[in-house]
Amino acid sequence: MRFEITDPDFENRVRASFCRQKLMGAIGAELTGLVPGEAEISLPYRDDLTQQHGFVHAGIIATIADTASGYAAFSLMPADTAVLTVEYKINLISSAVGELFIARGRVIRPGKRLSVCTAEVTAYHQGKGKTVATMLATLMALPNQAGLTG
Amino acid sequence: MRFEITDPDFENRVRASFCRQKLMGAIGAELTGLVPGEAEISLPYRDDLTQQHGFVHAGIIATIADTASGYAAFSLMPADTAVLTVEYKINLISSAVGELFIARGRVIRPGKRLSVCTAEVTAYHQGKGKTVATMLATLMALPNQAGLTG
Amino acid sequence: MRFEITDPDFENRVRASFCRQKLMGAIGAELTGLVPGEAEISLPYRDDLTQQHGFVHAGIIATIADTASGYAAFSLMPADTAVLTVEYKINLISSAVGELFIARGRVIRPGKRLSVCTAEVTAYHQGKGKTVATMLATLMALPNQAGLTG
Amino acid sequence: MRFEITDPDFENRVRASFCRQKLMGAIGAELTGLVPGEAEISLPYRDDLTQQHGFVHAGIIATIADTASGYAAFSLMPADTAVLTVEYKINLISSAVGELFIARGRVIRPGKRLSVCTAEVTAYHQGKGKTVATMLATLMALPNQAGLTG
Repeated sequence: MRFEITDPDFENRVRASFCRQKLMGAIGAELTGLVPGEAEISLPYRDDLTQQHGFVHAGIIATIADTASGYAAFSLMPADTAVLTVEYKINLISSAVGELFIARGRVIRPGKRLSVCTAEVTAYHQGKGKTVATMLATLMALPNQAGLTG
Repeated sequence: MRFEITDPDFENRVRASFCRQKLMGAIGAELTGLVPGEAEISLPYRDDLTQQHGFVHAGIIATIADTASGYAAFSLMPADTAVLTVEYKINLISSAVGELFIARGRVIRPGKRLSVCTAEVTAYHQGKGKTVATMLATLMALPNQAGLTG
Repeated sequence: MRFEITDPDFENRVRASFCRQKLMGAIGAELTGLVPGEAEISLPYRDDLTQQHGFVHAGIIATIADTASGYAAFSLMPADTAVLTVEYKINLISSAVGELFIARGRVIRPGKRLSVCTAEVTAYHQGKGKTVATMLATLMALPNQAGLTG
Repeated sequence: MRFEITDPDFENRVRASFCRQKLMGAIGAELTGLVPGEAEISLPYRDDLTQQHGFVHAGIIATIADTASGYAAFSLMPADTAVLTVEYKINLISSAVGELFIARGRVIRPGKRLSVCTAEVTAYHQGKGKTVATMLATLMALPNQAGLTG
């Protein structure tokens, strides 16, 4: 699907918002891809992000999928809005084993107020990718008068 | 609801598993409550866990809710099993503003293989609690022959 | 939780909307309970509502849970709005066996635009009730200028 | 994705199961497509399936999406199993307006015990198709000793 953007400066706006997400820096995630309606977040494996079996924690997998969905939606929103996650559902379909995890978020229904996105997280292990999670999310555009920026 | 436990040593089993979750230590979360079918995870606010508006990131809120659900379910599982999250859905119903966040997970349907749990996350701000998220989750018991412990 | 209503005539408004739902009549469902923020839909068993194993179809269970959630939310909305389901998640936790099915929807977070509800469906079999499904749903209030009524 | 089938007679097995779903006959739904890992259910518009605004009820849209997901998963399951829906989430992304509704279910992660599927429902109005709903679902294979067939 091709999307029409409402803010030609969307890339700077998304990147500035991503940089303000201190959690992204803390876990070592980066915004590695961005086109209108799609965003990609990459996260190298780190020992301190694991759950009890040594896999990356489902919560971290969800975090990068949620962030990828959010910026996919935010890329299509007008300049004067903030983006918030209303809700999401995630299926963890394989153990999160690998050296690198990439979440790819994609708008499937843009909206003035509500957007619907999907995200997939792929684990790369010894050069081979495997889908480890799939997400379906609802995001909301909030006018800036709500006091939030980006 | 009162639940029957199958493993009288459930508390040690759950606490040992929690300690192996390196992510919990990394974000500063603690297991502050545990009875059969219910688990509570507490997380003090930390600046490096925030999203772009300075609230605690939805992914971190989901992480403690997911962990609370998982250990609520795990407390009822037999001794020789591991617990995995199959999927969950979370609604983020208020901004995660506060000094302390407590996720309370509760089994609503225990099962030999699949368990269904709910979790609520409450933010405590200046002594007042407010629900910020609600989760509905499906967890799976995996026999230890799968090579996982706890 | 006690809720404040914005429309003292909410009961007539909800009942009128329910009556316009032709599907409710077609499957034999009735609105059997309504207080601000809560709605109850009752459905007697019928052979033509079953799936392949003779249980009531998950889709019908979801239909009454969705409707109960919708009217729970609608009861708190202003007079000049329509209610739409944005999304929901449902866990089917037991087979839908019984003579009567009752869905109880309840608002857990009312909102000017978005409301979050839960619903439970109980099957009554030989006088005994059993929870068969649990739902977590997001509903939207739409101003009437959108051309919808109720 | 191409899937390996475990039961070469999957088509007869799925069709027989579909025919036992009395609800499908009652609402006028038909199984119009089936390949390994994918199933398609078609439903012509009917006045008695509508909600309060005259659109097809979200519960009916979910019913055909759930059924399409279920048979997509069931097509890959061994001969001696029954399929049950564990849970699903659905986003209703446009009003269900049209003469014909087609739900397309697709396995995204087949499993011995649990399968994950997506489904999309398209409304056809005056010859033009529009996605009205998207679903993410978890299905379970149950051994026949559980007393269920198909």
